[in-house]
Amino acid sequence: MTSLQRILAIDAGGTTTRALIVDASGHTLGFGQAGGGNPISSGFEAASLAVVSATRAALEATGVDSPTVSSALVALAGGNSAEPTDLMATALAEIGLRGPLHIESDLLAMFCSGTPEGHGYVLIAGTGAVAGRITDAHLDFVSDGVGWLLGDGGSGFWIGRKVARAVAAELDGRGPSTALTPALLGMLGLGAAEDRTFGRPQVQLQLIRALYGMRPIELARFSPLAFAAADDEVAQDIRHGAATQLANTFAAVHLEGHGGPIVVGGSVLRQLSAQPPLSTVLQDGSGRSPLITVDDGVVGAAVLALRRAQIAVDNDMFTRITLGLAELRRKA
Amino acid sequence: MTSLQRILAIDAGGTTTRALIVDASGHTLGFGQAGGGNPISSGFEAASLAVVSATRAALEATGVDSPTVSSALVALAGGNSAEPTDLMATALAEIGLRGPLHIESDLLAMFCSGTPEGHGYVLIAGTGAVAGRITDAHLDFVSDGVGWLLGDGGSGFWIGRKVARAVAAELDGRGPSTALTPALLGMLGLGAAEDRTFGRPQVQLQLIRALYGMRPIELARFSPLAFAAADDEVAQDIRHGAATQLANTFAAVHLEGHGGPIVVGGSVLRQLSAQPPLSTVLQDGSGRSPLITVDDGVVGAAVLALRRAQIAVDNDMFTRITLGLAELRRKA
Repeated sequence: MTSLQRILAIDAGGTTTRALIVDASGHTLGFGQAGGGNPISSGFEAASLAVVSATRAALEATGVDSPTVSSALVALAGGNSAEPTDLMATALAEIGLRGPLHIESDLLAMFCSGTPEGHGYVLIAGTGAVAGRITDAHLDFVSDGVGWLLGDGGSGFWIGRKVARAVAAELDGRGPSTALTPALLGMLGLGAAEDRTFGRPQVQLQLIRALYGMRPIELARFSPLAFAAADDEVAQDIRHGAATQLANTFAAVHLEGHGGPIVVGGSVLRQLSAQPPLSTVLQDGSGRSPLITVDDGVVGAAVLALRRAQIAVDNDMFTRITLGLAELRRKA
Repeated sequence: MTSLQRILAIDAGGTTTRALIVDASGHTLGFGQAGGGNPISSGFEAASLAVVSATRAALEATGVDSPTVSSALVALAGGNSAEPTDLMATALAEIGLRGPLHIESDLLAMFCSGTPEGHGYVLIAGTGAVAGRITDAHLDFVSDGVGWLLGDGGSGFWIGRKVARAVAAELDGRGPSTALTPALLGMLGLGAAEDRTFGRPQVQLQLIRALYGMRPIELARFSPLAFAAADDEVAQDIRHGAATQLANTFAAVHLEGHGGPIVVGGSVLRQLSAQPPLSTVLQDGSGRSPLITVDDGVVGAAVLALRRAQIAVDNDMFTRITLGLAELRRKA
């Protein structure tokens, strides 16, 4: 096993797929990106294409003629089906994979993007919301992350849905007046027509048509409205509700005395980590040490890929990967 | 205008379409049924076919050779688009309609199925949930009924979604233990496998697959579980939450001093009308007179069709239609 060994790490996210090639010492050799590579949200074939496309870009970026990799690891959400593994392994073999393809949880990869430690917690809130407890470098216990219909409490979808429902409720007198109403109607380009059809305001009918014409998950794009309306009571209630949901999700994975850092990520969590009661729960859970914020799981995927190749990742190697990736990204 | 005049009334519901033919004195001449006739849930063409099919059955039931009707009225949800009117008018003209086709709100038809009075309220909670205030025989103000994503607070969908989320939350430690979990897993034929994949119990992954394989609105079929688990605290909270939502929806249409009866309908409302705080709000709103329960809007559609033909509907005529329809249904 020499430092010329090349290892492929892929973070297959819902909107972006990232591929990183490292050597056995953690030197970063190439980085590439493509579109959504999550088999659940994008479908198996599109996901496989995105993984191949990001890998091809990373291979090219190494500057080596016809480079090969000795193993690969893909981090993805809900990665527990054999189908994408086979499809991806075949596709990756065609462009240079000469060894095994491993699948890991994207949540564990997020944790490993923040720290090389084997114990700790991870909490992510973007479009979805999920928490995990890491024990001995494995994902030991996961809470939520069960999707918009069944859970994802405190996520961007959760907040966006509350925003839309608050507006619909104001329009027919069920809910209080809120700054979210002009904000949402404005965002959708809807007028404030006062006419009624069968006892209902025209603008509410327009809202119904606009929102049922979307995929439900798209309601997540209204979540920024709840943060923009800082002093609005309805928006404050929504933000507090989201922080309560996320605090509860974190509490479900937290184990007294388990220790380790808390890695956090996602656009919604960035805005909610200082909001009670989530802020309190996170401070207590981390022993008041700072939270570690990550943007994605690509460094963690590399850490996991190295470990699968029996290569231990210490603090120095972790820092080398992190700084090396930042450098590759800066150049790209 | 003689008593031989025939008038067609149609109640186009989400799962059943009902057609009733009455004469100018309110004698019921024929009744027929077909599948879902709501353009929103069934699509314009299927809805039109159901309306035609129910009408054909009602025309045949009159026992008259090639019967015609002088006017028709269709009661349907969200009836505010010109498209279904034109389609239905053309289709109905082919089988005997010799006059205008009117469209009315299904909510007003539900109210008119319960009473010939011109003032009052209607509250329906089945798969969806909606309330209306009736003033001078018109639907004056409507609250909720904006669908599963934006509202329908306290509806069968609302309850079924809460049931599914409570089960998902118990399975990963976010929520308390509840009798709803074995009930829902049993209903879906899922085992209680304890194995974990990537930190998540297998049974939760099975639940996710089962529920995301359904159309969201189908979660309404889990609402009976919340009523069956009478002593379960989580189920009690869900029932109380639903009653609070419906009380709020009713409060939004209620006007002090407006008067008139409260007409109620829907499988969920039947089980929640005695549940606080809804029970209190309904008792106060009705001046403590009994609620009027209706099963559908077909009698009301006939009342509205007669009024459109400039025929006043008094108490006697209302009773004649109601009893006549019951008789036709008994024979059918």
